[in-house]
Amino acid sequence: MKPKTIYDQQRFFEKYAQMERSKKGLEGAGEWTAFRGLLPPLRDKDILDLGCGYGHHIAYFLEKQAASVMAIDASERMLSVARQRMEDARVRFEHVAIEDYDYPIHRYDLVFSSLALHYVADYEALLKGVFRTLRSGGEFVFSVEHPVFTAQGTQQWAERDGHRLHWPVDRYFEEGARESIFLGESVPKVHRTLQTYLNTLLQEGFALVRVIEPTPPPAWLEQPDMADELRRPMMLCIKARKDTHEIPYRRERA
Amino acid sequence: MKPKTIYDQQRFFEKYAQMERSKKGLEGAGEWTAFRGLLPPLRDKDILDLGCGYGHHIAYFLEKQAASVMAIDASERMLSVARQRMEDARVRFEHVAIEDYDYPIHRYDLVFSSLALHYVADYEALLKGVFRTLRSGGEFVFSVEHPVFTAQGTQQWAERDGHRLHWPVDRYFEEGARESIFLGESVPKVHRTLQTYLNTLLQEGFALVRVIEPTPPPAWLEQPDMADELRRPMMLCIKARKDTHEIPYRRERA
Repeated sequence: MKPKTIYDQQRFFEKYAQMERSKKGLEGAGEWTAFRGLLPPLRDKDILDLGCGYGHHIAYFLEKQAASVMAIDASERMLSVARQRMEDARVRFEHVAIEDYDYPIHRYDLVFSSLALHYVADYEALLKGVFRTLRSGGEFVFSVEHPVFTAQGTQQWAERDGHRLHWPVDRYFEEGARESIFLGESVPKVHRTLQTYLNTLLQEGFALVRVIEPTPPPAWLEQPDMADELRRPMMLCIKARKDTHEIPYRRERA
Repeated sequence: MKPKTIYDQQRFFEKYAQMERSKKGLEGAGEWTAFRGLLPPLRDKDILDLGCGYGHHIAYFLEKQAASVMAIDASERMLSVARQRMEDARVRFEHVAIEDYDYPIHRYDLVFSSLALHYVADYEALLKGVFRTLRSGGEFVFSVEHPVFTAQGTQQWAERDGHRLHWPVDRYFEEGARESIFLGESVPKVHRTLQTYLNTLLQEGFALVRVIEPTPPPAWLEQPDMADELRRPMMLCIKARKDTHEIPYRRERA
């Protein structure tokens, strides 16, 4: 049977394990310095991690004295690594896709997701779940691949003679499935426009707190090709807040 | 003396006058259908129009029963056209750059700007002025050229053999001046990232209400090259609200 997620395919799983961010954890993730800045104080918070992968963020949440972490992932392989690393009574794991989790009402103070939501087809349904499961004042902090990065589809620079000319944008308003090339494998992702990422949050009742396009820390820029990360945005990180107890079933459009 | 704005240069002014949006007004502006959807009810509102140009939007505001319109523009030529067309006791004009207007405290219900703010160098100072001049609950609705459109600088498609390959993005995180080619002339514009457009609003005390990337109406898409407008975003339209009487001199960052 073909695995439901590419992260359960042996070859991809092995290649992913060799990435800097896989081996070094958060210190190997260029966006972490900026992304971390969106997190609220975590002490005594109940946190839901959507697409926890190896569980690197869970370790950070525990270090910051979170009360509990519920971590879900669609990949059994990723989850088994996370389970082994993170034996702590405050952490629970559930092997379930982000789309299929039940989002219990008013349960969490923070819903977090790192680079997972561009695999989710129904963003609006997801936001309804996240809104429901947050307590009043609770926050949703997530990163996704940037619409500029996902639009054209192949996720490769336009090159001539091995020289990176520029980043190609195309098919921007054609939302939906893309077959990108990631670690040499064809990986299915979902492209959404910026207006969809932002307005669906607003429509579902969230207030936007901050939107960032993270760049690598200055010290990183001397690594080969790293300065090219300043030529186009690769990720989009959003912090949104639920300011009400109510779940907006019907809401007038702004 | 060289005019302060390109719109006062004879050759550019004449070419601009031949554009669809110049001849037809709002009906000739592909983004207007979507952009108009951001406007609040205008009846009895006091409106400030930043960079009014020919004054096409002023006519719309009056048609919708606005109480008053203050229209400013840095171009004496554009303003003289607007003045001739728009003789109405509810309208006042001021020949002043957007950067130099005095933004009287708590004066307007709506601050509006169409495709002018990508000429303004100091966006943060502008937002302080707009925030100050809005009444509580007042709104700021504006369009600018999209960061994807302004980043690389030339504002031309990447082509091969006269065929449009894709839209080139480059220099994205290098904010500041660009010399774009517009109507065959070199026109100085300012590139800003999306995060700057949004977070500066949040930092200055605005709530984000809606962010759109307008596309032409479906009926337009049969015109030559018009379907290419779906290949990359050209404009960014933002609606923000001032929900307080206070002017935030110091504000914690989110």
